Amino acid sequence: MITKNDIKFIQSLKQTKSRKENKMFLVEGNKLVDELLSSNFKVEKILVTDLWLEKFPEMASRLPFYDIISQKQMEQISCMVTAPGILATAHTPYYNISPADAENEFIIALDGINDPGNLGTIIRTADWFGIKKIVCSRDCADAWQAKTIQSTMGSIFRIEIMETDLKEFISASQHLSISATPIYGALMEGENIFTKKIEKKNGIIIIGSESHGIRQDILPLVTSPIHIPRAEGSKTESLNASVAAAIILATINN
Amino acid sequence: MITKNDIKFIQSLKQTKSRKENKMFLVEGNKLVDELLSSNFKVEKILVTDLWLEKFPEMASRLPFYDIISQKQMEQISCMVTAPGILATAHTPYYNISPADAENEFIIALDGINDPGNLGTIIRTADWFGIKKIVCSRDCADAWQAKTIQSTMGSIFRIEIMETDLKEFISASQHLSISATPIYGALMEGENIFTKKIEKKNGIIIIGSESHGIRQDILPLVTSPIHIPRAEGSKTESLNASVAAAIILATINN
Repeated sequence: MITKNDIKFIQSLKQTKSRKENKMFLVEGNKLVDELLSSNFKVEKILVTDLWLEKFPEMASRLPFYDIISQKQMEQISCMVTAPGILATAHTPYYNISPADAENEFIIALDGINDPGNLGTIIRTADWFGIKKIVCSRDCADAWQAKTIQSTMGSIFRIEIMETDLKEFISASQHLSISATPIYGALMEGENIFTKKIEKKNGIIIIGSESHGIRQDILPLVTSPIHIPRAEGSKTESLNASVAAAIILATINN
Repeated sequence: MITKNDIKFIQSLKQTKSRKENKMFLVEGNKLVDELLSSNFKVEKILVTDLWLEKFPEMASRLPFYDIISQKQMEQISCMVTAPGILATAHTPYYNISPADAENEFIIALDGINDPGNLGTIIRTADWFGIKKIVCSRDCADAWQAKTIQSTMGSIFRIEIMETDLKEFISASQHLSISATPIYGALMEGENIFTKKIEKKNGIIIIGSESHGIRQDILPLVTSPIHIPRAEGSKTESLNASVAAAIILATINN
């Protein structure tokens, strides 16, 4: 049974504050709920409408449990313009990504990525290229909001993501490792990413924010400056943050 | 003087139908109006509010002409949640991209890219890598709508873009050229884009739609199937369309 208070609580999870306090988030739509159910995430509730049940009997038969709510209630809790008719609540996982991990694999460090669409797209791209760990500065968009989750297309359930003090995290990676862990960052005077030799698939890849790039107090931590060369004569000032991230991840990893 | 009818007309340019009929479009915000003014586009009107004039006297002094309208009128014609206070109308240029051009340069062919953000991001990325010509299937998002133009960050003023019958266009490129013009398309069984040798920087690069990839009747036209390899074990089904486009443009061009 779903009470009025349940609806009120679920509705509150649209807000970052409530998601952080309750360590829970919302997942909407067939594809994403499907991906949630095949993940290790702890699912709390699955809510569907009668209309959804009629339309998707096959998927309904696969749901481990669910409650039926009215169309009006669904519209109240949905984050989308048109409510897809199925919404689940789940517990936010806790990941402990250690700076020492960068000795043996790539870690992406997002510095102030504040567009949820860009954040989600970067998570999806990381998943494609097999990069499993992402650390975010505290002013990044919230990974557990609807817009981000939609943009990940389900990759959010397969990537470890942690909010942290980026400067501390990156600095720590330098003290912890025996050999020097490379810290990659896109800078104008960096080395051409298409010709740079990557010796070992490890280190931290910093992706700067949409408007300011990598922030001033993090810049000195970059040990391997890289650069995506622009065509001669091009007047574009920058690439979209998720596009720049994708080109870096693709070339560094291949 | 701006009349009520002028406002009504400008407001109509929010709609694709009116933009196509009148061959005009809207440009909003300081950065984009600046880029418009330094382009060869024919500008019709520049509208500002008193508040904008107070805030940006330097830019105001650079405007070749302008009319002042009320905040209320600005909100009526603005496409943005918060109206930036400056909006221009301009004439849509006519570009004639010929299939024969693909003999000597890259042309991007967009097959049903229907998200305006993706379309704008692809235009911006093309501009970065010095690709000057984009042809769009008729079911692509409209390049002259506010969301696309915003996402291009001004690149829309530097790239030639043309709507066309993609199948006809690509087929024609094969008959016209003396040597075979390569037609690149991302397919699962394509050649690894990171190891493929690109002999000459020319040909047509097809980018498939967000949901269906390259459509069935265009697939047989691909002569150089390519592939962005996914990490072993990754369960992601696909990359975002503008991310896939960026990785292809970056690697093919460098």
